[in-house]
Order: sequence, then structure tokens, then C-alpha cells
Amino acid sequence: MRTASVGVFRVATTGPGDVSGLMAMIGSGAIDPTTILAILGKTEGNGGVNDFTREYAVAALCTALAPELGLSPEAVEQRIAFVMSGGTEGVLSPHITVFTRREAERPAGMSGKRLSIGMAHTRDFLPEEIGRSAQIVETAKAVTAAMADASITDPADVHFVQIKCPLLTSDRVEAANARGNTTATTSAYSSMAYSRGASALGVAVALGEIASDISDDDVLRRYDLFSSVASTSSGIELMHNVIIVLGNSASSASEFEIGHAVMNDAIDVPAVVSALKSVGLGVAPLATEGRELVNIFAKAEASPDGRVRGFRHTMLEDTDISSTRHARAAVGGLIAGLAGTGAVYVSGGAEHQGPAGGGPVAVIARLS
Amino acid sequence: MRTASVGVFRVATTGPGDVSGLMAMIGSGAIDPTTILAILGKTEGNGGVNDFTREYAVAALCTALAPELGLSPEAVEQRIAFVMSGGTEGVLSPHITVFTRREAERPAGMSGKRLSIGMAHTRDFLPEEIGRSAQIVETAKAVTAAMADASITDPADVHFVQIKCPLLTSDRVEAANARGNTTATTSAYSSMAYSRGASALGVAVALGEIASDISDDDVLRRYDLFSSVASTSSGIELMHNVIIVLGNSASSASEFEIGHAVMNDAIDVPAVVSALKSVGLGVAPLATEGRELVNIFAKAEASPDGRVRGFRHTMLEDTDISSTRHARAAVGGLIAGLAGTGAVYVSGGAEHQGPAGGGPVAVIARLS
Amino acid sequence: MRTASVGVFRVATTGPGDVSGLMAMIGSGAIDPTTILAILGKTEGNGGVNDFTREYAVAALCTALAPELGLSPEAVEQRIAFVMSGGTEGVLSPHITVFTRREAERPAGMSGKRLSIGMAHTRDFLPEEIGRSAQIVETAKAVTAAMADASITDPADVHFVQIKCPLLTSDRVEAANARGNTTATTSAYSSMAYSRGASALGVAVALGEIASDISDDDVLRRYDLFSSVASTSSGIELMHNVIIVLGNSASSASEFEIGHAVMNDAIDVPAVVSALKSVGLGVAPLATEGRELVNIFAKAEASPDGRVRGFRHTMLEDTDISSTRHARAAVGGLIAGLAGTGAVYVSGGAEHQGPAGGGPVAVIARLS
Amino acid sequence: MRTASVGVFRVATTGPGDVSGLMAMIGSGAIDPTTILAILGKTEGNGGVNDFTREYAVAALCTALAPELGLSPEAVEQRIAFVMSGGTEGVLSPHITVFTRREAERPAGMSGKRLSIGMAHTRDFLPEEIGRSAQIVETAKAVTAAMADASITDPADVHFVQIKCPLLTSDRVEAANARGNTTATTSAYSSMAYSRGASALGVAVALGEIASDISDDDVLRRYDLFSSVASTSSGIELMHNVIIVLGNSASSASEFEIGHAVMNDAIDVPAVVSALKSVGLGVAPLATEGRELVNIFAKAEASPDGRVRGFRHTMLEDTDISSTRHARAAVGGLIAGLAGTGAVYVSGGAEHQGPAGGGPVAVIARLS
Repeated sequence: MRTASVGVFRVATTGPGDVSGLMAMIGSGAIDPTTILAILGKTEGNGGVNDFTREYAVAALCTALAPELGLSPEAVEQRIAFVMSGGTEGVLSPHITVFTRREAERPAGMSGKRLSIGMAHTRDFLPEEIGRSAQIVETAKAVTAAMADASITDPADVHFVQIKCPLLTSDRVEAANARGNTTATTSAYSSMAYSRGASALGVAVALGEIASDISDDDVLRRYDLFSSVASTSSGIELMHNVIIVLGNSASSASEFEIGHAVMNDAIDVPAVVSALKSVGLGVAPLATEGRELVNIFAKAEASPDGRVRGFRHTMLEDTDISSTRHARAAVGGLIAGLAGTGAVYVSGGAEHQGPAGGGPVAVIARLS
Repeated sequence: MRTASVGVFRVATTGPGDVSGLMAMIGSGAIDPTTILAILGKTEGNGGVNDFTREYAVAALCTALAPELGLSPEAVEQRIAFVMSGGTEGVLSPHITVFTRREAERPAGMSGKRLSIGMAHTRDFLPEEIGRSAQIVETAKAVTAAMADASITDPADVHFVQIKCPLLTSDRVEAANARGNTTATTSAYSSMAYSRGASALGVAVALGEIASDISDDDVLRRYDLFSSVASTSSGIELMHNVIIVLGNSASSASEFEIGHAVMNDAIDVPAVVSALKSVGLGVAPLATEGRELVNIFAKAEASPDGRVRGFRHTMLEDTDISSTRHARAAVGGLIAGLAGTGAVYVSGGAEHQGPAGGGPVAVIARLS
Repeated sequence: MRTASVGVFRVATTGPGDVSGLMAMIGSGAIDPTTILAILGKTEGNGGVNDFTREYAVAALCTALAPELGLSPEAVEQRIAFVMSGGTEGVLSPHITVFTRREAERPAGMSGKRLSIGMAHTRDFLPEEIGRSAQIVETAKAVTAAMADASITDPADVHFVQIKCPLLTSDRVEAANARGNTTATTSAYSSMAYSRGASALGVAVALGEIASDISDDDVLRRYDLFSSVASTSSGIELMHNVIIVLGNSASSASEFEIGHAVMNDAIDVPAVVSALKSVGLGVAPLATEGRELVNIFAKAEASPDGRVRGFRHTMLEDTDISSTRHARAAVGGLIAGLAGTGAVYVSGGAEHQGPAGGGPVAVIARLS
Repeated sequence: MRTASVGVFRVATTGPGDVSGLMAMIGSGAIDPTTILAILGKTEGNGGVNDFTREYAVAALCTALAPELGLSPEAVEQRIAFVMSGGTEGVLSPHITVFTRREAERPAGMSGKRLSIGMAHTRDFLPEEIGRSAQIVETAKAVTAAMADASITDPADVHFVQIKCPLLTSDRVEAANARGNTTATTSAYSSMAYSRGASALGVAVALGEIASDISDDDVLRRYDLFSSVASTSSGIELMHNVIIVLGNSASSASEFEIGHAVMNDAIDVPAVVSALKSVGLGVAPLATEGRELVNIFAKAEASPDGRVRGFRHTMLEDTDISSTRHARAAVGGLIAGLAGTGAVYVSGGAEHQGPAGGGPVAVIARLS
């Protein structure tokens, strides 16, 4: 079995086009650009349809990395998985998390499973497949492939599955209509939810969290069907799903560890504490000897029943601010408080990612 | 010395015009309408200049209470202090908190200081006085008067001073200009910050938290000058300041107790925990025998230096969503998580209310 | 045949709760409150789900008119048709238009048809009926009844049909689900479009503009089906449709005349000019002897194909500002320019009201 | 005297990063990239502080043009003047306008003055100079230099002066404070207005529209002081002013002509018609033989007195949508209607650019 060393670097940015932090780390030798597998980022946009900060960030990174890798910017975009989640509401702070992987011997004395990462992607979807069975089925296949790529065999060792998935635009809806087909929705904004939801259900199927007989009608309706580790973000720039599996593996030689918990609602403090504890960390400002927080990855959403622990929320009835922005701001405030930093990855739109109104929360710690 | 019993009732609302919860409690005898002194509310609006949910809520309450009190709606508005704070971002839940006061014997066996409430108001301000010394000086006088009304002599017993203060509109700026005077700002939105800031400085002066020699230029600049218990909200509907002092008093026969702490930044979990502890409560979902959370009152703001604990935030550079909405959402998420409920009073715009980027957090508990 | 005199009064407001202009006209005798049939207003809100300025305006008007009519505020709301359209983006100016009707002899020398008004309403709808056939069919019936009430027999004499229709909320969707039924959409915001669209199709059916065999699937899809005179606004405060028919009638003794045209897209200047000409008016600042503009009533929407006359617009992909706000602002700017005033009634969401991307525009002139 | 041929090309874009239209024209030979002097664009952002679509568009253009010019992207940004105006509200359509200039003989039979373009820039400003006299004085000098560059001697031949100017950020304000200086404002958003205003006053001084004795206090206060041809946009990416002068010159061999008028308020239809007529064009859909509209350049703003032709507007009291977005949407709707296209350059924030509430409107026509 191949053994690999996985690195995780959180780098603050000063804007969506800022690559200086990453380039400095490459310059200093802290990061070997050829080992970069994936970059997850939080950018300043609204996280909605017209959030151009995501593609701007990707374009800036590809342009900057191209000469380092001896590739064209386009080839860089094919080689590295970029997942930019727009929306740094409230105390959330724009940053990127760089994941590297290289072959490495596992040191003799190393004990326990360590952070491992794997990737895969689906075929391109037709607009009319987005948010429906085809997207679920293809995603499930790709999750299985990504687990294998990460040398993870037990689904219980998978702690976070990040997916980047497409959305519908006027043009894409029109293209489907021209073929005589209708799409799951005609609204670009709504399509983001459908795509995220179907992708998450694909994770749940792959990991055996739910049965595989999901119908189109279950998407965005059967909220009792969900994955506890899926995190999906839709973006305008692709038509297929990209899957990144993060978990712990006995074949990893990494100095990092990942764990997770599930927030049952948007104010589930014990779940966040539990996720921190799962990798040996405490609540800020408590320090833990030999362990250091690298980043937290969580999904947030407005509970679809309009209530949080019995009290009405107003996120879904707000025509001024989209509910995903509300939810990121609130959950971001909570997690930032417990983590002691706003530079955490809280992403909006948790359809079928954790229970309705809740979501997965994963923590990566560095062991020294 | 007069002894009084103070009651506190948190009532959920279904919209800014909803008075049904309060009227039901009056109908059942749980609340005697003649004892209502003040009503603090969180309404669904944006909390900005064009937030009409505040005046709508006040109008609805006055209309509903008028027949109960045998007064016209206008007279009800004069009699009861209404402070509506717009903005229930994220998990925050619209509700009102009703404060009642009636003369009462203090039971022989009652020990310790208990919740007391006092009120006062300033004269009307000219538009050119808003956000400047005149507002500071007059507010300080009124705070002292309100303390006396609450039978509180020691400033250390004051735990929350809620103030309702005016803002500038185009008309008001024009009126000042017509007199040959300029106003602190010509922007309606900015004027809300000036008015909140000067009012908070008035509290700090009254309670001896800072010296009284504040100049106009210190407002919104000298953020090291602040009150740890001030909470100020500006609204379009008045031209004077209304002051409500909440504290503990040996002459109170109330079954409630209040305490507070100061959040040093927007993610200060220990401060919220400390405020809960100050009235014998723990973090949700921990239950405390004999003690029950009634409500939490806190102020939130985007730190003016653009950072939270070293990491950049984007609240002040966001032209889509005002920074007060961001801050309420984030701090609301944090407090709701620790309190176990989104029905808390988190209000935006904490200029000179707590340190820059932080704010006061007060908790009221019921003792059974 | 009953002959009636219809009056139309445009009254500026200083806020959604401002009734002073109307009360002054009642005080001066200019308006007899007992003759008020309908009040159409433009209020300051976002025109979306959480636009409370509409219900606030209605509450303020009902409270103010109650003593004038010797009725309770609730009874006033039953007696007068209030249609508040939220959203005064750009140069649009908040105001109300008061329609009065009283029996009157038609003067011997009066020539031509004159402004007439009629009203009717449907039964309450179930949430699952909104945006579907039931709403279309019931609306068509009510339009026919309202025409009769207006003494209009020829559909060509109908120039504007204003409808107020319900929307879905989380609670209403849940109620339908509890009955085992699904609603046309689960999004409150989207439901406004469904309700407006089905209501407009009802008008088209009633006036013979389209055949009556509309299926549920045609709503928000078959945009070639539309009414040239329908204007529909959805609001949270009712579960039935209220219909107001405006047209010209030989039995009217009114000094007003109404005409209309159809904007084929959002920048259709000739259509607005044609609507003005249809009642003898020119483009501002041209004055027309003996004729005076009272108000313009128009519907605006973002063209669903994402283009205006071949050029891409960004309204439907904007997650910060809803497309209805964009469209009102743009069409409002155009009409205000041609009319010479921003105090015009431009309402958003023109689904099946005029061709896709366009909408009806009606003009009322006073003849002296 | 040098004679030059100036070209103007309007190119639609599909997003802020889209350069395909321009590259196709370069590929086909329609545009010689070495002759590109300036590119003015309308991008999809909010036009506010956090509008990253402007810098994204510039970055994309520089990256694409770099190999064509044999320069680095950074050198391209120095060589060509890029002015991106964010905000395509309502019917406005994202596009760029490319200005080229090359030496050319003026054909013998060519009559009249033709379109000419000139450029210049100021030194970098300190944050504390923005919005104050230094910015005015330096801008005036640079305008004079740009006129000379355009071979224009008579100020009456100048029809549009586009300026790109800096804004304040938290960091820049802090830097000024660290030097013991205060800035004109501490708000990033407000600083955009100050910078635009001072820059426009610089144009007015240079063209003799106003006297040169402007004091710091006049900026954003003395709205009777303005330029009829200034158009200024502030952006985060620079600290100096870039000036582009557009006018007609007898030494130009261009096939284009420019003219302008001044809108006295946001609904000034006759001014737009007059600007169209000044270059021989009529209102859409009227065609003019031998003349074709290329683009319209206009500035829009919410009138600071809160009224448009006597009627209250709500743009300045809106905390949800910034007034610049409102104004662009409304004026954009009006101009698009008269021009027959939404692909026009309407930019927000017209402080001291035209009279209060109005703004300049310039039209470029191609003569065939």
C-alpha cells in the first residue's frame, strides 16, 4: 500500500486576487508547489450566483502557480482541485487552505491513523441532470474512487467530503428546454441548492449512510436523508462534480489528524466542542499541549422549518439577504468563538449535509 | 425608601405588528398593563435608517395597549418606554421583553440585591447637537436621574443602560444648515453611529467610567473611551434620549437578578460565559436548579480596525450588507449557542459601548 | 343602468405610516371617506416576502379611517380594497392613490366613456392552490364580477386590472404538507411569482385574451400566455385574491379617463408614449391643455431570457438584490422621465402580465 | 500639429473575466492591440468598496493583452488606462469600450472636428489628501495635460473627462492617523464620494467652469460648484488619479464624433435627447442615416436634497441598497430607453459632476 504524507496550510488572503501568502511559502520552501493537490478557500463574495470572487481567486491562483509548475493556467486548473466558497460574513476571515500530498515512508514510531486525502471527479452533467438522480449516482461512484485514492477503506474513517458542483444559469436552462427537457428549477439561485443537495446525497449513498434508492423527488424534500460528512458548494465554472475526501488512514505519514461531529442545529455548541475534542483540542483560549488547530470545516444553513430550537428565525423570509449569508454569519460567529479565530471554513447551503438546519463540522489538528 | 417589584417577560412575536402574545398575557392576568414601564424588542427590519419595523411595532403596541390603559395610543407612547432594535439576522428571533414595576413590600426572608429598573429622558436635541457634547452631557444627567428612579446608588450595581436616541435625516440636516450650522455628518446612516456613540459616552460619564471632559472630536475616534454597560439604539421617531437603567437594588422585591460582563471582541466566549455565571447560570444545555434564563442583552459591532483577534474581517468594506447586520448575525450566533436560544436581544452599533469591536453583555435570570 | 362618479387622488406620503395627506383631504372635504373604494399605494419596502411596510401602511390607514367611517379598523380593511406595492427603488416616490365612487347623474353634455371602477374577490385559497389552476379559474370568475360592478361590458374598455394575491410562508407550506399535498414551490419568495402569474392568467382568461385551458405547468413557463392589462401583487396578509377593474364606461360621470399600452420590453419608450397619448397627454415637460396626468400604473420585470433587446442583463443572477427591485428601478426611471414625476405606480413581478420582460402601462388623466 | 485617428469599439462581455470579445476583434484585425489607449468598462459588481469585479476585469484584460503587446501583465496595466465602473443594475449590460489612437493623416475632404482622446495622470496621493484641495489642484493640472495630449485647445471642445481616483480603506486611514493626520472621512464607502467629488472639482477648475479657490470644506457641500463633463470613479487599486479627456479636435482623423448635455435631474429626458441630437442621433427606435450610436457615457446620483422634481425619493435613506446602485438603475433605465440599448456606460456617484442630483451625459456617434 502506498504511504503518503499530507500537508495542510492555512494562508490568510487580503482579497480574492491575493496570492502573495502562498507564493511566499513556496518561495521559502515551506510548500512544494508540485505536491499541491487541492486548495479550499473562503472568498469575500456573496456566495450566490453572481459571486465572481470565486472564479477570480481561482484565476489568480492558476496564473501564479503556472510558472511554478511549468504549466499553462488552464492546465493548473485541471491539475489542482480548487474549491472556493464565497461569503465571509460576520467575523469570518478570507483565507485559503492548501492541501499537499507526496509519497513518503511512514516513520516507524508513528501510531494511529493520520490525515489522508483523495480525489476524483464525475463526468459532466447535463443541466437537466443537476439536482436529480444522475448527479446522486455519479457522485456516489466518484466518492468511492476518491476514498480509494486516499487509501481509506472504512467509511468511518472519512470525516469530510468536499464537493464542488455546478449550478444552472439562464443559458443552461434554455439549453435543456431546447432539448425538450425541463430542469429541476429555472432559478439560478435555487439550482445551487438542488445541486448541493443531490451531491450530498451521493456522499451519503457512497458511505452507506442511507440506502441507494433515492428518487428525484427526495432532493430538497426528504431532509431526513443526509450525510454527516458531506460539504458541497456550487459554482458557475464547472459542469461536473469534483470530490475531495478527507479522512484518517493507517497508511498516512502525515502530522495531521482529522475528526468531525454533526451539528444538529445552527447553535449546537456541544457538537463543535465534540469535534474539537475528537482531535484533542479544547475551546479557545484553552491551549492543548502538542496539538494545534489548523482549520475547521463546517456547513451552515437556515433550518427549512423556519425555527431554531423552537424559536422562529427570519432567514428564509428575507428578500434583502439570502439565507445562506445569514446562516454562514451566525454559525461562523459561533464556531469562531469556540475556535478563537474567524479564519475558519464555514460554507453555506447544507442541504442533505447533516440534519435539516444543522451540518457537519470537521476539525484538523497538527500534532507536534 | 420605596421598594418595588420588577417583572420581566420575554414574549415571542410572529411579526412586527404582532401583539397577540402580550395581549394574551394581559388577558390571563399574567401581566398587569398598568405596571408596564418599558418594552424592549427585536424586530425583523434591517436596523438601519429605513427600518420601519421599529415604528410599526411601537404603533401596534400602543394601539393595542390604549384601551387597556384608558389612554390614547399617543399617550401610551409617552407613558411606556419602547425601544425597538431592528435586525434579527441569523438565528436571532423576533420578540419583545416587557418590564413591569409596581410598589411592593420586600419579603422578610429575601436576601441580596434584586433586579431594579429606572427611567428618565433628556430634552429634545437640535440636529446639530446629535453626536456631540450636548448629547453626552444631557445623557449623563438623565442616567443619574434614572439610577435614582431605580433606587440604585452604587454605579457598580448598574448592569445595563439601554438608551434610545435620535438620528439625522435629510430634513433635519437641512434644518441645521438653514440655521447656519453643520451637523456631525450629513449621512443618515452615519448619524446613527454618532448618536449611539455620544449617548454611550454619556453613560460612561454618569457612572464614572471615564472623565467628563469629552470633546466633540472624541466621538467615534477615541474608542478607548467607553461604557461597559451602555446599549444605545438610534431611531427616526424621536429627537431626545430615553434612558432605561437596569441593575440590582437592595430595595427591590423582584424575583429576578441581573449581571453583566464585557466582550472584548466579537468572539469572546469567556465573557458570555462569565455573564451567565454572574447570575448563576451555565452554558446551554446545562440546567441550573432554581435559576432560569430570561434574556440576554448584548451589543455587537464590527471592530473598527478591521480585524478580529488578528484576522481580517470584511464587515466594514461591504457595500451590500451594513456592518451592523454582519455583527448582529455573528455575535447573535455565538450568544444564541451559549444561551441555547435565538430569542436574545443582540443589538448593533456598539460605538463606545464596550471596547472597540466588543460590547457589553447582560443577563437576567429568574430565581424560583 | 347605475351611473357613478369615480374620483382619483394621488397623495404623497412621508413614510409607510403617514396618513396625514389623506386625512387633510378628508378634513378639507376634498375626499368623502364614505366613498373610498380602493387605495393603491407604493411603499418604501423591498417588495419581497419580508416587506412589512405594506401591512404597516394598511394598518395605519385602517386605524385613521376607522373613526371617520364609524367602523373598527378591521371592518375598514374589509370595506376598502388596499393594495400596497412595496418598493420605491430609484426615483420612485412613495404615495397612495385613492379611488372613490359614488352614485351620480351623468351630465347631459358629457361625451365619451369615462373612468369606472369595479371590485370583487375570490374565496380563500389553500396553500396548495396558489399558483395553480384553482387560482386561475377563481380569479377569472371574480374579474367578470368586477367588470359588472364597474358597468363595463366590453373587455376592450378594461385598461387595468389590479389584483392582490396571497403568497406562501413556511407555515403555509407545512400546512399543505400536513394534508399530504405539495405546494407549487417551497420558497416564500418564489411563491410570490407563482401567485402573481396565476392571477394574471385569470385576468387573461376572463377578458378573452387567452383560451381557458391553462394547466398548472403553464404557470411561469408559457410566457406567451399573458394579459395586457393585469397587474398583480402578492402579499402575506391575505389568502384570497382581491380584484379591482379600472376601465372606461359610458355610464360613468367621472372627470377622469384611462388608457393603456403594453411595454414589449423594459425599455419600450414608444409604449409609454402611446399610453400617455391614449388619454391625450404628451411627454414631460410638454403640457396638454385641459388634460392633466393623475398617475401611471405599470408592471416591470426582468426578462426571463436574461436579455433586453439582445443585450444581457444581470438581474436574474444577482443574489444581492432581487430582480423585482432591479426591474422597478429601471422601468421606474424610464416612466418617471417620460411622465416628469417619480410619483408613479410601478410594481414588480410581471409574470404573465404583458409579454415576457415587458408589462402593461396604464395612464389616468383628469379632464378639466 | 500631430493628427491622429481615434477608434471606439463597444464590446459585450459575459462576465468580469470575459476577454473573448476583445481577443476576437484583435484576432480578426479589427483592433490593433498596440493602439489601445484606454478601456472603459461596466462590470457586474456593486460599484462599492468590495466590488472585486473591477480589479478582476482589469487583471483578466492585462493577462490577455500581455502576450499581444509583448509585455508583462503589470506593464500592460501601466500602459493602458483601465476604468472599470462597477454596477450594471436594472437593464444595464456589462461591456467594455475600447479606445484606440494612432497617428494618421487627416483626409483632405474631412470636415469639422472629430473625436480625439488624451490622457494624463497625477502623482500618488496620501490618504489624507483624498477628497481635499491637493486632489483638486493636481487633477486640474493633469486635465490640462490630457487636453494637450488630445490636441484640444478650446475647453468647449471637451465633452467628457473620465477620471479614475482612489478611495480610503481601513489600512489607509490608519496610515494617515499614524502620521498624526486625519482623513476626510473614516468610512471607506464615504471616501469614494469625497474622492469622486474632489476629482470632478479639479476638472471644473481646469476647464474654467468654476474659479480655482476651492476649499476643503466645499467638497460634498457646495453642490453649486460642478463640472458639466466630469465623470469620476473611485477604485481601491490605485492612489493617483488617471485622467482621460474625450472631445472633438480639428486635428483628428477619426470617423467618430462626441457631444454632451447636462442632466439637471435624474429624470431629465430632454437632456438625453439633446445629447443624442448633438451628434445627429434621435430617440430609439428612430434610425439616422449615416450616423450610428456607439455608446453613451453618463453619471447618475441620488439628489442630495432627497427629492426629484419635488417628490421625495428614498435612495439616501436605504440601508439595504446603496444610493449609487439605485441611481444607476433608474438613470440607466431612462437612458437605455431613449438609446434603445442597455449597453451604455452609466456610472454612479455624480458628486460635483453636473448639478446636484443630475450629471453629464455624453454621446459618441460613428459617421459612415
